[in-house]
Amino acid sequence: METEHIDHIGIAVENINEAIKFYQEKFGMKLLHYEVLNDRGIKVAFLVGKNNEQTAIELIEPIDHEDMSNTVSKFLKNKGPGLHHLAIRVENINKALEELSSKGLQLIDKQPRPGARGHLVAFIHPKSVMGVLLELVQSKE
Amino acid sequence: METEHIDHIGIAVENINEAIKFYQEKFGMKLLHYEVLNDRGIKVAFLVGKNNEQTAIELIEPIDHEDMSNTVSKFLKNKGPGLHHLAIRVENINKALEELSSKGLQLIDKQPRPGARGHLVAFIHPKSVMGVLLELVQSKE
Repeated sequence: METEHIDHIGIAVENINEAIKFYQEKFGMKLLHYEVLNDRGIKVAFLVGKNNEQTAIELIEPIDHEDMSNTVSKFLKNKGPGLHHLAIRVENINKALEELSSKGLQLIDKQPRPGARGHLVAFIHPKSVMGVLLELVQSKE
Repeated sequence: METEHIDHIGIAVENINEAIKFYQEKFGMKLLHYEVLNDRGIKVAFLVGKNNEQTAIELIEPIDHEDMSNTVSKFLKNKGPGLHHLAIRVENINKALEELSSKGLQLIDKQPRPGARGHLVAFIHPKSVMGVLLELVQSKE
């Protein structure tokens, strides 16, 4: 498999509206997309710099901060807000999952599932990626 | 200030040679640049996807893992390997630092200093960036 490009860096935040405003006002980032993912229990916002929209930061806030079955709520509770995951864009997510699995990496999602922006996504366990929670993203197009 | 683009995501690793090989072999990333920064006590490697070299991952290994005055050694000891910092590209780092300071953000580097690839860099304290260690990068050009 090949990495097409770095898709985004996921950042867990306590309050997504404050965080959006913060990155806009302090660092002059541009809000690209906002979405509530009810099935995953999170709100997400993608922000980018002015010269490159391919790589974004993804701010993530859980809908229910008290729900410890939600991995982002648990992350915030245990570690506090901060860098959460790294996402890379791939051309064929099914092929990538098959290849990574055959190479012995531990998949969190054995099958891709719908993620933000209509893309297909799947997570790889940080134990298999030297401590990094890694997300594969395949464009819906 | 404006963010030009996401420059890189810093990732602390236990062994940079193994990590470079891992990201090349498992995820098909391309090694863009390798450098030993003696004054900062670290070895760094930048890897990118095939379609966009603007945003990289930066693998970071301390030269001396036992030296707890080195922030990356300390990070590895306390948290283990994983996502370390987020770096954004800015046009004018001096102006950006002045602006962020006037907005009340806590600067780790009051003045920019030479970083990897000959660029000028400065770090902002995670306390001021919702838990994210943030690096400003100005191109040497």
